[in-house]
Amino acid sequence: MSHPLIPRRDLDFLLYEWLKADLSYGRPPYEDHSRETVDAVLDLSERLAVDLFLPHYKQADQCEPFQDTSGAVQVPQAIGDALWQYARAGLFSAGFPSELGGMNLPYLVHAASFSLFAAANLATSAYAMLTIANARLIVTYGTQAQAQQFAAPQIEGRWFGTMCLSEPQAGSSLADIRTRAVVDGDDEFGVRYRLTGNKMWISGGDQSLSENIIHLVLAKVPAEDGTLIEGTKGISLFIVPKVLPDGRRNDVTVAGLNHKMGYRGTANCLLNFGETSGAIGWMIGEPGQGLRQMFSMMNEARIGVGIGAAAVGYRGYRHALAYAQERLQGRKPESKGGPPVPIIEHADVKRMLLSQKAYAEGALALCLYCAKLVDEHGDEAAADLLSLLTPIAKTWASEYGLAANDLAIQVHGGYGYTRDFDVEQLYRDNRLNPIHEGTTGVQAMDLLARKLLPEPASGMLVLRQRVNATSHMASEFPALAPHAESLMKAWSEIESAIEVLRDVPRPRATDNAVPFLQAFGHGVAAWLWLEQALVANRALDKAGANAFYAGKLQACRFFFDFELPRVPGWLAAVVALSDAASSATPDIF
Amino acid sequence: MSHPLIPRRDLDFLLYEWLKADLSYGRPPYEDHSRETVDAVLDLSERLAVDLFLPHYKQADQCEPFQDTSGAVQVPQAIGDALWQYARAGLFSAGFPSELGGMNLPYLVHAASFSLFAAANLATSAYAMLTIANARLIVTYGTQAQAQQFAAPQIEGRWFGTMCLSEPQAGSSLADIRTRAVVDGDDEFGVRYRLTGNKMWISGGDQSLSENIIHLVLAKVPAEDGTLIEGTKGISLFIVPKVLPDGRRNDVTVAGLNHKMGYRGTANCLLNFGETSGAIGWMIGEPGQGLRQMFSMMNEARIGVGIGAAAVGYRGYRHALAYAQERLQGRKPESKGGPPVPIIEHADVKRMLLSQKAYAEGALALCLYCAKLVDEHGDEAAADLLSLLTPIAKTWASEYGLAANDLAIQVHGGYGYTRDFDVEQLYRDNRLNPIHEGTTGVQAMDLLARKLLPEPASGMLVLRQRVNATSHMASEFPALAPHAESLMKAWSEIESAIEVLRDVPRPRATDNAVPFLQAFGHGVAAWLWLEQALVANRALDKAGANAFYAGKLQACRFFFDFELPRVPGWLAAVVALSDAASSATPDIF
Repeated sequence: MSHPLIPRRDLDFLLYEWLKADLSYGRPPYEDHSRETVDAVLDLSERLAVDLFLPHYKQADQCEPFQDTSGAVQVPQAIGDALWQYARAGLFSAGFPSELGGMNLPYLVHAASFSLFAAANLATSAYAMLTIANARLIVTYGTQAQAQQFAAPQIEGRWFGTMCLSEPQAGSSLADIRTRAVVDGDDEFGVRYRLTGNKMWISGGDQSLSENIIHLVLAKVPAEDGTLIEGTKGISLFIVPKVLPDGRRNDVTVAGLNHKMGYRGTANCLLNFGETSGAIGWMIGEPGQGLRQMFSMMNEARIGVGIGAAAVGYRGYRHALAYAQERLQGRKPESKGGPPVPIIEHADVKRMLLSQKAYAEGALALCLYCAKLVDEHGDEAAADLLSLLTPIAKTWASEYGLAANDLAIQVHGGYGYTRDFDVEQLYRDNRLNPIHEGTTGVQAMDLLARKLLPEPASGMLVLRQRVNATSHMASEFPALAPHAESLMKAWSEIESAIEVLRDVPRPRATDNAVPFLQAFGHGVAAWLWLEQALVANRALDKAGANAFYAGKLQACRFFFDFELPRVPGWLAAVVALSDAASSATPDIF
Repeated sequence: MSHPLIPRRDLDFLLYEWLKADLSYGRPPYEDHSRETVDAVLDLSERLAVDLFLPHYKQADQCEPFQDTSGAVQVPQAIGDALWQYARAGLFSAGFPSELGGMNLPYLVHAASFSLFAAANLATSAYAMLTIANARLIVTYGTQAQAQQFAAPQIEGRWFGTMCLSEPQAGSSLADIRTRAVVDGDDEFGVRYRLTGNKMWISGGDQSLSENIIHLVLAKVPAEDGTLIEGTKGISLFIVPKVLPDGRRNDVTVAGLNHKMGYRGTANCLLNFGETSGAIGWMIGEPGQGLRQMFSMMNEARIGVGIGAAAVGYRGYRHALAYAQERLQGRKPESKGGPPVPIIEHADVKRMLLSQKAYAEGALALCLYCAKLVDEHGDEAAADLLSLLTPIAKTWASEYGLAANDLAIQVHGGYGYTRDFDVEQLYRDNRLNPIHEGTTGVQAMDLLARKLLPEPASGMLVLRQRVNATSHMASEFPALAPHAESLMKAWSEIESAIEVLRDVPRPRATDNAVPFLQAFGHGVAAWLWLEQALVANRALDKAGANAFYAGKLQACRFFFDFELPRVPGWLAAVVALSDAASSATPDIF
């Protein structure tokens, strides 16, 4: 293995043999692209990821960010060097239109490129992911002057960006934020405000890497009597730079760093806004639109988390595979003596490797499928399906990427538990993903309460059509027909559960949203594995024996034999409307 | 909550209300014990665990063992201080008979005591666990002179002990060990040997805490032509002290320390035996008996791992519970506005807490049940059942203790991912338990290939009788009758799977041993939850409303609604004899 990242062979399979990404190249809005331009981006991404993101993977874990005597946050320079080359390669700007200096790369290609960097170094990649999302938000909702001043340097990769949502007392519950913004005049960048408040969990909140940092801050504008509007309606969005356009330092200070279990290269800060004179910021768009603006980026942000989680799971699998091929231990059960064999010969090691393959490749496929839906601008069915699948992409990739990392440790045995190998760090890094950008519990509520229970659940209709179409195609191949049948059965059970829940008043209908999401997620993953198997099956029919396609078929079969049967176990409590959890009173614990 | 360890209320429930531990007190071999003497031991254990083991929990993680310039391993002194008080309290010797300075404590009580120390500080407790096991082995199989010289100081807690099994090239595969022992004469301690070889993963392999370290080393005595006997038959067991009886240092050197993800207070070493003149050691018992001797201790060692894993899971649950009671965030779905509520009010937080309760209390119950079987000397049914349940106690507690720790992080949200809280360290510490003392894969083979497939599977007959008896009792209570029915159904599915596997030649019958073990483990856990529920149900009938008993009933109901339904999902691939994993060839990955 030349590197432990996602093999280009698999990315090409997913992008071209399965998702037919090239059908959109050469046509608006991607008329400037061809297989060649995209291949060049992926070649470059692979090279940069291997040469610049991978080498400081352990260093950034061992030398975590710290505040120097001036209070500034210091981060290993290798992170800055890698991101500087990422900028030079045009990858900050890649997804933006040419008038903003970009190459208008399809989001699907950006996602594939990002998967390589995330596999190499999730924490370093996070700076780029946040900066790109920040700039895109300003470009989308800000004025031209705001975009020119605050987004353009981020698109160049000279400045980095953050998203400031949570506060110490308000994590997932944004209605309760207390940061306030008071009008301070206006200037070329719009109405100017003074902000005061504390923001928690700010990734990249301070660092020694970029010339400036643009904070996008959710805050409330108080009424004349000084009170804040209750709930989420009063939330607006503000651009708050670390260094102001006139070169002065803004009133933003680092109150502390969070010392994390993993993901350590990403400095994570508690920021105080306006400790002295009030932090200067400019509102984006209209008052009260902050949450809507922020959440309009949420599909991409959550798919981004999914891509990262899948990529980290994938890399763990590749390490485990390499170890299992090399490590000699034990003998095959049917042999009498003889030398030890590579542990990949043992049935249970195969099971652990196939689980990882099914989880990691499945999660990547799911996230890239969603990324393609992002690119299908103006297609209502695609938009509905994307909205439905986003909480699954985020959660399934996070939960099973981590499960893959857990198994990667297990394949390594005691060695996997030591810091001499990478798999323990991958496991620690990936543990954040089920938490940030909306926990698994938050995603489950989004899926059930917002996307499925209200009728018509238009995303669900699209999904069901596509699942049926896949099953129908698969049913014509003897090797896949039993899977097609299992898939239809699983989805009919999932749909029955939705029917049951629709007949029940809330909150009871959503009390067991997480087990429901687990079942739904496995249903989606199984569907996409059958999709991959169809492609592999056709290719094998044409080309004859081929280990890559055989691997896809084996992983699909594994998923249907070992994983899909778990669905009824999760649905049991859901359809029984069990209140064994929700009826618990605090005293019984 | 006065401390985050296992509540005494639950230990008392498990020991007395459920397991009726006091029925054995006052009668041989426990004629010196009464509820009072045992309570004193548990009181003392709780106090020492809280006052001496808990305070350096984080310090031992942050200041991990290192080799000083002389090559000696330095460990934080707080670990030594805690263990010295543990020794002063007579807890090293507690399980040994009075003629060896002990108090002949039942193993069940020792296990309950140990659970408190493991919850407080698993890594510090490990030194005691290993030392006690080492001394017990010498006392059981060694000569009186060996016991006097090498076991007695360990029973006093002045010297510590290790178990040296694995070698760098031979982890789980002990047949391949290459450490050799050559006769060097004989003396008062028996036949004396010179040992040469490398031993890997030696917990406590060197440290700065005890006056001496007694290594128990598996090695092979070469034939006259210098060759080693193939397989496990040639393995013997040797006592190899760090400091020899005459005060000289033995030829044992630390070749390196393993830097682990967690469990860091326990120094884990690669040891070289006999780099110069050969390490001096004395054989225990007869040649070729090494593995048998070592494995005669294995039930207790594996239950010990299970207890530790359960205890760490339990402590995580207690932290999550405290956090959920205090942390204010969000509102109940039915409320309109108002102040934020403690997150324990949210259905999904309740689900996560109940999962942890079901896993952690369930795992502790399982391990204590096994500990009681250890005490039932001479009862053949108990011995058969213990042999069957040991791989479950080890694995289920390890896997679900860790799962509980994962959920404890999730309840804390982002805070749980930081080192300001303890739950991330508990998660890292517990990740070792599914690996050491036989991985989950090794346990699954033990369960299926050794304990269940060969007929008569006498342990299984005992288990089935007891499951039936529990179900029969439960079926008389309306609240428990549905669980009784579910339990019978699950066990009949598990038994059908065993029948299917018995008709299949190996290795195929054992290819999917791990999913089988997962199903079996949940079946056992469900049975013991129903046992606990029966006790709680009777107590409620007598005493009226009581939150503790209500909690036991709620956790039981939760397990039957949310967890037991997972059993068919694991069995599906088993009974289908799926070769989707085992047929994978190395090239398809």
